[in-house]
Amino acid sequence: MSLAEALTFVLELDRLKSVERRTPLLDGSRVENDAEHSWHVATAALALAEFAPADADIARVVTMLLVHDIVEIDAGDTPLYDDHGDQEEREARAADRLFGLLPAARGAELRAIWDEFEAGESADARFARALDRFLPLLHDIRTGGGSWNRTPGLTVGAVRERVQVIERGSPELWAYAERVLDDAVARGYLAPG
Amino acid sequence: MSLAEALTFVLELDRLKSVERRTPLLDGSRVENDAEHSWHVATAALALAEFAPADADIARVVTMLLVHDIVEIDAGDTPLYDDHGDQEEREARAADRLFGLLPAARGAELRAIWDEFEAGESADARFARALDRFLPLLHDIRTGGGSWNRTPGLTVGAVRERVQVIERGSPELWAYAERVLDDAVARGYLAPG
Repeated sequence: MSLAEALTFVLELDRLKSVERRTPLLDGSRVENDAEHSWHVATAALALAEFAPADADIARVVTMLLVHDIVEIDAGDTPLYDDHGDQEEREARAADRLFGLLPAARGAELRAIWDEFEAGESADARFARALDRFLPLLHDIRTGGGSWNRTPGLTVGAVRERVQVIERGSPELWAYAERVLDDAVARGYLAPG
Repeated sequence: MSLAEALTFVLELDRLKSVERRTPLLDGSRVENDAEHSWHVATAALALAEFAPADADIARVVTMLLVHDIVEIDAGDTPLYDDHGDQEEREARAADRLFGLLPAARGAELRAIWDEFEAGESADARFARALDRFLPLLHDIRTGGGSWNRTPGLTVGAVRERVQVIERGSPELWAYAERVLDDAVARGYLAPG
């Protein structure tokens, strides 16, 4: 394969640094972007490896988390508590274009791992999805409500439904997440119900 | 190990998003930070895996790149073309503190891989270091000189010396880097000599 060809993909990745999320940094100074979020969850997978399903392969989980959001270069960030509209279709088109920039074998390999993340069924995907939902909870609770404040009247039930995937990836992370949600109601960041 | 203990480390990582580098984003809108740079080089390792030494283990290279800059949370970014002063000592202290936040076994494992990156001798470390030097060259050449402009009169020889480690990690990346350096002189971004 040609280096120049693979570099087209590598250079295109730079645009993920300009896709803003709704989650604030822990110091509240600004919201984070998709690139630094992807680094944070991938590195968290290394730190929290023992809370993964027994048959998870952490190297694959890390790969998955490194590429999980790159479709947002084209499709943009869809905040967790918004209407998702045609998100799935837009993201599939983005995946076709972006992974298509790579030489065929490498592109197919990374596309398959992104599809696996999206499907959310394998042990690796379940743990990756758990981490991707778990970290924002920590940011939101520690910044006075964080991204939750963007949706007035947001109930703990609505948030629980969105983050329930954590349970399938890691019972320990889920137990912790449930305490965070209780705490968010006690502090008045989320409405009960 | 306790989840709460490991989370201390995970939350501390967030600070890397606020450590600025001198390298601009490709669109020139701002400089990048260490967290998004770490994501970019780790993901580049996946895309450029065939240009790694034959005995490199890409999963280890990725792990290395995910943690390679976290010491800069305490020690700050030391620009490539500045005097490095007591950088080594400050970074070793930072590594003690940061990897020390993790439960002992996990902390020792990630510290060892960071030490290996710093030593730069293993195949994995040589490829990781090559990528870490290679990407900024692409940003600098594509943004009218980028970080080079911060050091008036910077010669191509001085830059070549700093990025020469690319050669030990990947002859293909090095050949490309040499063309970038020639081009930088031709465009007047770097002084000859």
